[in-house]
Amino acid sequence: MNFSSQLLEDAVNEFSKLPGVGQKTALRLVLHLLSKEQEEVSHFGNTLIRLKEEIKHCNICHNISDHQTCSICTSVKREKETICVVEDTRDVMAIENTNQFFGVYHVLGGLISPMDGVGPSDLFIDSLVQRVATRPVKEIILALSANMEGDTTLFYLHKRLKDFQIPITTIARGIAFGGELEYADEITLGRSIITRVPYEGSFIK
Amino acid sequence: MNFSSQLLEDAVNEFSKLPGVGQKTALRLVLHLLSKEQEEVSHFGNTLIRLKEEIKHCNICHNISDHQTCSICTSVKREKETICVVEDTRDVMAIENTNQFFGVYHVLGGLISPMDGVGPSDLFIDSLVQRVATRPVKEIILALSANMEGDTTLFYLHKRLKDFQIPITTIARGIAFGGELEYADEITLGRSIITRVPYEGSFIK
Ligand SMILES: [Zn+2]
Ligand SMILES: [Zn+2]
Repeated sequence: MNFSSQLLEDAVNEFSKLPGVGQKTALRLVLHLLSKEQEEVSHFGNTLIRLKEEIKHCNICHNISDHQTCSICTSVKREKETICVVEDTRDVMAIENTNQFFGVYHVLGGLISPMDGVGPSDLFIDSLVQRVATRPVKEIILALSANMEGDTTLFYLHKRLKDFQIPITTIARGIAFGGELEYADEITLGRSIITRVPYEGSFIK
Repeated sequence: MNFSSQLLEDAVNEFSKLPGVGQKTALRLVLHLLSKEQEEVSHFGNTLIRLKEEIKHCNICHNISDHQTCSICTSVKREKETICVVEDTRDVMAIENTNQFFGVYHVLGGLISPMDGVGPSDLFIDSLVQRVATRPVKEIILALSANMEGDTTLFYLHKRLKDFQIPITTIARGIAFGGELEYADEITLGRSIITRVPYEGSFIK
């Protein structure tokens, strides 16, 4: 690109570093910002700087937080003895959105991925083991992605946690509600056959 | 979205204000920035603040510039008597990329669009008329988009400039080079028939 200004080029280059943002998109975003008031653009810039400077990770669950300990871990309404283990903060947000979970979380900060050079020591796994060893825990829910990294991590976590003799569960995987069977991918369909459950009411308990 | 942090929510909201960026994309971009070093994020933020604070618009052609007068307007290699009128800095960049134009520019800062409340006085049209009135100009090229706003602006500019008796041209519109006729949209095809040109060599001059 033929930039008429170094300042413009610098800003476009910064945006281009973001995932999924090409040079043309970056230019469009920068020109949009240029059309805004000084105050608005400064606010944008300062929000990003403050974000990185001031953000914390909860000292119990490692979720992104404004305080030393996050609002979920400090809430008296949450069941501290049920820990849901997730990859990152997006998963916490997704599960919170369901309003179906009332326990607490443990954010691993990623998944084990030998291909990407991410091993167990790069994740908050030791601190999970420590947490389970030192506090009363009734159930550990492993809510990880249904892919190879998720399965590898699941396997490893199970190995590290099984000796505590606490129930370890994983979230159910299968055909999405409302999803038509014929459009489901074969892996999901296959797994959902293997992990079939009794039809409610049709079996004597 | 259920944010675990106000700082996170603020940053996501800032990104969501950008055109074409939804909340999910904004969250992905913010989490990407959070995974970077403090220095890198500060650099991003400060680049945006500096951009808006320090950027100038050329006092001759109104293009985005780091100086009072842009590098094209100050270049001794450019033909100052040929002015190419464009909508915005992206058009200057696109034309510069062709390496086919050696004159100077005049950036209008938009197109006349009654629907969007943009009238002639919102654009750098008076300054174009002033420029043509006070400096020697041999040709004015109107390189505007081939849509209704472009045509409206073309019509208006012609009305304002025709009394100077300077040749006014517009860029050729038609089937793109390498473009197959059957895939061209009907408006482009129709216009390219109406504005047909002599086949080189087949007509006596
Ligand atoms: Zn926490
Ligand atoms: Zn200029």
